[in-house]
Amino acid sequence: MRVGWIGTGVMGASMAQHVLKAGMPLRIHTRSRAKAESLLEQGADWAETPAEAAEGQDAVVSIVSMPEDVQAVHLGPEGTLSAAHPAPILIDMTTSNPSLAVSIHEAAGKLGVRAIDAPVSGGDVGAREARLSVMVGGEAEAVKEAMPIFHAVGKTIVHHGPAGSGQHAKVVNQLLVASSMIGACEALLYAHRAGLDPERVLESVSSGAAGSWTISNLAPRMVRRDFEPGFFVDHFVKDLGIAMEESQRMGLSLPGLKLAQRLYLGLQQSGRGGKGTQALLLALEELNAS
Amino acid sequence: MRVGWIGTGVMGASMAQHVLKAGMPLRIHTRSRAKAESLLEQGADWAETPAEAAEGQDAVVSIVSMPEDVQAVHLGPEGTLSAAHPAPILIDMTTSNPSLAVSIHEAAGKLGVRAIDAPVSGGDVGAREARLSVMVGGEAEAVKEAMPIFHAVGKTIVHHGPAGSGQHAKVVNQLLVASSMIGACEALLYAHRAGLDPERVLESVSSGAAGSWTISNLAPRMVRRDFEPGFFVDHFVKDLGIAMEESQRMGLSLPGLKLAQRLYLGLQQSGRGGKGTQALLLALEELNAS
Repeated sequence: MRVGWIGTGVMGASMAQHVLKAGMPLRIHTRSRAKAESLLEQGADWAETPAEAAEGQDAVVSIVSMPEDVQAVHLGPEGTLSAAHPAPILIDMTTSNPSLAVSIHEAAGKLGVRAIDAPVSGGDVGAREARLSVMVGGEAEAVKEAMPIFHAVGKTIVHHGPAGSGQHAKVVNQLLVASSMIGACEALLYAHRAGLDPERVLESVSSGAAGSWTISNLAPRMVRRDFEPGFFVDHFVKDLGIAMEESQRMGLSLPGLKLAQRLYLGLQQSGRGGKGTQALLLALEELNAS
Repeated sequence: MRVGWIGTGVMGASMAQHVLKAGMPLRIHTRSRAKAESLLEQGADWAETPAEAAEGQDAVVSIVSMPEDVQAVHLGPEGTLSAAHPAPILIDMTTSNPSLAVSIHEAAGKLGVRAIDAPVSGGDVGAREARLSVMVGGEAEAVKEAMPIFHAVGKTIVHHGPAGSGQHAKVVNQLLVASSMIGACEALLYAHRAGLDPERVLESVSSGAAGSWTISNLAPRMVRRDFEPGFFVDHFVKDLGIAMEESQRMGLSLPGLKLAQRLYLGLQQSGRGGKGTQALLLALEELNAS
């Protein structure tokens, strides 16, 4: 299976490498060619535009930053669907709007291209270790054909339904992460004020009903005052924005999401967009500064 | 070690049984004697009052419902400290106020009794399997003497500092549970509205960065519409009240806690105090009923 690949950020670069190693020839496009050099040295071809990455391939994958990038990469003037012979399977693995996934699916369908949305969870570590959770939306037959790509990068691969369903499942994932992060920050803030040793507290709470991935993996970083990404605040603000937009569209009021969005927007506006999501602790500390 | 034991509710009954089986003779008092019958048949003695349960024993343990019960059991006219020869070690395992734990410690100290607060986490299952997390506050020497009791009921036993520290650690635990529960409910509500299969969604999200004890253990109950306790809403409302009272006392503003308290109070006021904490889903569904 010859694969066009668009986007070689923290996630995309690791994932592309696994696909290449699994024996699928890659043709890569990315905004700054420098970020693709390592993959080009490993045998990938270079494409000047998204259209060129999709031209004549068996599938084209995108994993870029923002929904507007997804739109440009596929529906723009040099987008994959503008190719003379676009790849018959289009897979967007960016965390993006469910509604945009549906629009791309419709536009692609008119050209005989089957579009799949397949955002992932598991972070930089999951990408490096090919242990991602891949949340898939699209037509069953197309999803089946795309499976070699998903298996190359992921461990848990679940098909959730028609186009947009993968993005909806990712929203669910981020709702959980958001609340978990608020709990972890409030817990550590309380522990600090109460004069407790944070490491002993984590020992007490991590294995029982209060346990979570966040507590096991991010709370220790917070305790060490390590706020490096991991997962960027800027990207999480995007994800929470998508969650808010989609839930409002469905007439859903989610007060936990609303709170998380407010706190993370504050964090971004105070110049911490480039920190990791665990920097939420700083926002709660500042809220409580006297 | 001869142990006086006060309180044989869901948690207390299982825990007392483990202590008895570990070879420590028990003298039990509880509000309704019927709830102690099974333990009495297994060889425990009966005490008519908390004072009688504490009289001449090596240690006395309480695990009752509310902070006012804790106060009455130890400081009341028939309380453990009113005994002629009160047990020299007093252990309260109820989830109660850190400040009350300090008061009891002070009152006990005047009589030469060393008081320890040691609330637990792990629920009915953890109590039955003697796998609780025991969060301990008190003087190191007294804590050391009480260890046989903690080891009989728990798996993770952590000494957090002076009197009140165990209760503070339990507040931390409940802050995490509260946010986790909000996240789980919002996630399932969103998944439902988006037309996703909730079981497949749980498969996608449970093993990665969104994973938690709540998602693995309570979300499946929510999906089955099983709202039986587990852990009572009424008890959780008490715990959140303690968390709020203590954080306000320390001048801490915790917006996630505030939201959880508002939602759980609403749930209690609509007559769901006897349901399990996962019934929070009902509150969020009603918030979104058109």
